[in-house]
Amino acid sequence: MRESRPSTPPRPGERVLVFDTTLRDGEQSPGATMTSSEKLDVARALARLRVDVIEAGFPAASPDDARAVQTIAAEVGVEGGPIVCGLARATENDIRVCAEAIAPAARGRIHTFLATSPIHREHKLRMSKREVLRRVREMVGFARARCEDVEFSAEDAGRTELPFLAEVAKVAIDAGATTINVPDTVGYVLPHELAEKIAYLRANVPGIEDVVLSVHCHDDLGLAVANSLAGVAAGARQVEVAINGIGERAGNASLEEVVMAIRTRKDALRVDTRVVTQELVRASRLVSRVTGMAVQPNKAIVGANAFAHESGIHQDGMLKHEETYEIMRPETVGAGQTELVLGKHSGRHAFGARLEELGFPLEGEALLRAFERFKAVAEKKKQITDADLIALVADERHRVHETFRLEGVQVACGTSGMPTATVRIASEAGERVEACVGTGPVDAVFGAIDTIVGAVVELVEFQVQSVTAGIDALGEVSVRVRPVRATEKIDPQRDELQARRLVHGVGTDTDIVVASAKAYLSAINQVLAQTAPRKAA
Amino acid sequence: MRESRPSTPPRPGERVLVFDTTLRDGEQSPGATMTSSEKLDVARALARLRVDVIEAGFPAASPDDARAVQTIAAEVGVEGGPIVCGLARATENDIRVCAEAIAPAARGRIHTFLATSPIHREHKLRMSKREVLRRVREMVGFARARCEDVEFSAEDAGRTELPFLAEVAKVAIDAGATTINVPDTVGYVLPHELAEKIAYLRANVPGIEDVVLSVHCHDDLGLAVANSLAGVAAGARQVEVAINGIGERAGNASLEEVVMAIRTRKDALRVDTRVVTQELVRASRLVSRVTGMAVQPNKAIVGANAFAHESGIHQDGMLKHEETYEIMRPETVGAGQTELVLGKHSGRHAFGARLEELGFPLEGEALLRAFERFKAVAEKKKQITDADLIALVADERHRVHETFRLEGVQVACGTSGMPTATVRIASEAGERVEACVGTGPVDAVFGAIDTIVGAVVELVEFQVQSVTAGIDALGEVSVRVRPVRATEKIDPQRDELQARRLVHGVGTDTDIVVASAKAYLSAINQVLAQTAPRKAA
Repeated sequence: MRESRPSTPPRPGERVLVFDTTLRDGEQSPGATMTSSEKLDVARALARLRVDVIEAGFPAASPDDARAVQTIAAEVGVEGGPIVCGLARATENDIRVCAEAIAPAARGRIHTFLATSPIHREHKLRMSKREVLRRVREMVGFARARCEDVEFSAEDAGRTELPFLAEVAKVAIDAGATTINVPDTVGYVLPHELAEKIAYLRANVPGIEDVVLSVHCHDDLGLAVANSLAGVAAGARQVEVAINGIGERAGNASLEEVVMAIRTRKDALRVDTRVVTQELVRASRLVSRVTGMAVQPNKAIVGANAFAHESGIHQDGMLKHEETYEIMRPETVGAGQTELVLGKHSGRHAFGARLEELGFPLEGEALLRAFERFKAVAEKKKQITDADLIALVADERHRVHETFRLEGVQVACGTSGMPTATVRIASEAGERVEACVGTGPVDAVFGAIDTIVGAVVELVEFQVQSVTAGIDALGEVSVRVRPVRATEKIDPQRDELQARRLVHGVGTDTDIVVASAKAYLSAINQVLAQTAPRKAA
Repeated sequence: MRESRPSTPPRPGERVLVFDTTLRDGEQSPGATMTSSEKLDVARALARLRVDVIEAGFPAASPDDARAVQTIAAEVGVEGGPIVCGLARATENDIRVCAEAIAPAARGRIHTFLATSPIHREHKLRMSKREVLRRVREMVGFARARCEDVEFSAEDAGRTELPFLAEVAKVAIDAGATTINVPDTVGYVLPHELAEKIAYLRANVPGIEDVVLSVHCHDDLGLAVANSLAGVAAGARQVEVAINGIGERAGNASLEEVVMAIRTRKDALRVDTRVVTQELVRASRLVSRVTGMAVQPNKAIVGANAFAHESGIHQDGMLKHEETYEIMRPETVGAGQTELVLGKHSGRHAFGARLEELGFPLEGEALLRAFERFKAVAEKKKQITDADLIALVADERHRVHETFRLEGVQVACGTSGMPTATVRIASEAGERVEACVGTGPVDAVFGAIDTIVGAVVELVEFQVQSVTAGIDALGEVSVRVRPVRATEKIDPQRDELQARRLVHGVGTDTDIVVASAKAYLSAINQVLAQTAPRKAA
């Protein structure tokens, strides 16, 4: 393993652009679908982090996706804010839809791509090299006519012949691309190999010095962060990353790891980003919550244990001198900060103000409802932390049209072996109450809901996590369900892949059985909202 | 970032030794403590993986740790099996205790260490360079007199001056060390820096060609896997890794990622390991279960999504040709294999045989009890998968002395807001029944248990996961508790750090409230077993 030396070493302090794809590649993780309002919250968190580019979605995938990109472009892509980018296949229709979606942003970007590796050309595209080059020329030009800022990605660049990759890059630059991205789509390359590709492009593509070279690395072999850094060391000046490293399969390079490696090892890498690292932990928690993708405790930077020292030897060292076992301070990434704690005597003003500070502003009716829930919880729980608050208001913020509303749950269970649930649900058709016996209390509750609603979904995953430590903690239940196509409730005209996507529902309550009912019904309402007949645009 | 070229390139197919530290560094993750029988199960899984060395623990830490290492040495360290290694600080007592613990193994290893970086010398050890060198010489010699196979680690080698590191290595080799380990204790180095250190040692330490050079990388900046590979490329021939990458803080390099990167990129790295990769997923699940350390879905190789393709574009490519988006087959790592499914008509013989195949042999009473539980679950659940089976028998296999035994639980809860639990618990003092109201059903159950048992522990973390998909799945509850020192039940003589360690309890049932009661009581019994007055050896 060798690494090519960059032809021109970076000037100290030179900046690397952070291109976040949590909302596009990240959202492609199985079951990580987000609602439009969740996407907007994530985009706002990314703006607070001061990432340079937000890839907000793939507008041509569905009208919902297009609307989400458009909303983010309008609300977050303001003057002085991040560039808002949309993905588009190399087709006129995709590019047109994308250009419309990003139009409201002060600075928008069209990101178009075409596969260039032999295996993709042959098996997926069934196109010759010449056809690939022509398509790149035409579609980058088509995009550039609609937007000043055009990124072109050579999909599976990691397995593309270098001379052809250089040809593709040259054609894209000549046609007006301003960023050339080199993705390791399948997570196959080793750091020195990616560095060699970047160095090769810098040495062999005329005009490359006038565009930004970018890397997009997948983590299938656990090398996404190292590959991103190797790309930067070789001259790439944009890294494509995602919060918590989510994305297809093993995911993308994790934003927090790449950013903190660059910050911590500025001495060696001689570049930096402008990311506000103190926002990292909060952004990580938000993304984990809205996608239902847990962060493992031993995850670097944002895992629960990332700054925890267990062994006596290490604790002893830490007491003597922090730097003996710590290369970063937890405060630098926003971990373990003292949380402002609210209690049952806190008023609505303090409650609303704290939510605003946390980046979850609520107004009017929604604020009133959330405050009522807060008071109910504060009656039971001694201290309400920021984590509790965010969990409490998540439902309010991401409420979809509720076809069915939970009015009451009652459960009896235990070792006697006949767990029984009674559920009351309201809908336009009125109220209905059903009882059901199950294998456990949650099974019984879900059975009763199914009886009322009809078997709309199939449960794929069920998880409970306590939001904060302590026996009186709020329980947060996360379910993933698969829409059942057999029922007439699901529109058979829907694209099959779309219909097969997993849907994620969250419910919070001090009673985990109640939280489970909320989570399951929330997922069902989302499926029904997605599949309801749409009005013509 | 540059990488030094190894002075002698590896011969194709040369072997890299896999040194697994799941049971030592991995067990140092907060709350990842394992019981002796859990450690033995993990050691057996490591033997099935064919790792070369198992670091089984730190014998001097406690008599429990010493016994666990001894048991693994006797049961797993058989002729033809892995080397069983114990960790020892560079003191006569540690090394003596370690030598005794590994004595039953056919091939044992003593792994002793001393910090060598300026910051550790000054703040932790308060020793001069000269004192460090003398201690290394004496203690490596002391170890070598007790064991043929001695590994020396220069703790915080990543931040140690290179010439001094070379001096230390020379002294250790002269005193009889057979493996020299270069740990990046704080997870600070970049791949090319570690490669340079390895190359420097190879060029500047006389006798280095007669020992095995090893790397031990931490993942604080997300670079542990890349650093391990860079070490190998520069000439290291042992990698220290842990299943699921667990370990202090952000953990160690993950065994499965390092092994699969080496296997998948054999073409470039020109080395291999002898790991049986088909066992990786099963080993990962076992470690996750016994440590309570979840694996995130986007974890490379063993995460739930590692081989899942969500987006339409990718699925389309996959249908046309698998290799378009896949560089490894899921079968290669033992993922997604068809599971043998048992049902309620399966007999005890089939049940026992399947458990044995899964690596969880049960006999006599324990087999009978597990079979009864299996029948009870099979009555409720349509299909029993391997994952269900393993969850079912985990309690049986890892039963500690039960001071308190759960006899019955009964719960009523729901939106009415008065969750009430009644619990019956048996102990030597007889049976007791208590009822308690809580903020939710689990809080009520834990409250009732506390009333009977006394407040022995404080709840730190609570998680529920369904073992398999589907609404009738088994629920597995995982709790982490902190022993409460105030109570007279905890021996005040115990080492404070030891007493502050988090304890992990697991319970499985189709009823998650019952599973919660089991998990909480299991954690309590473990705390009481650990703190019970010990008989003199």
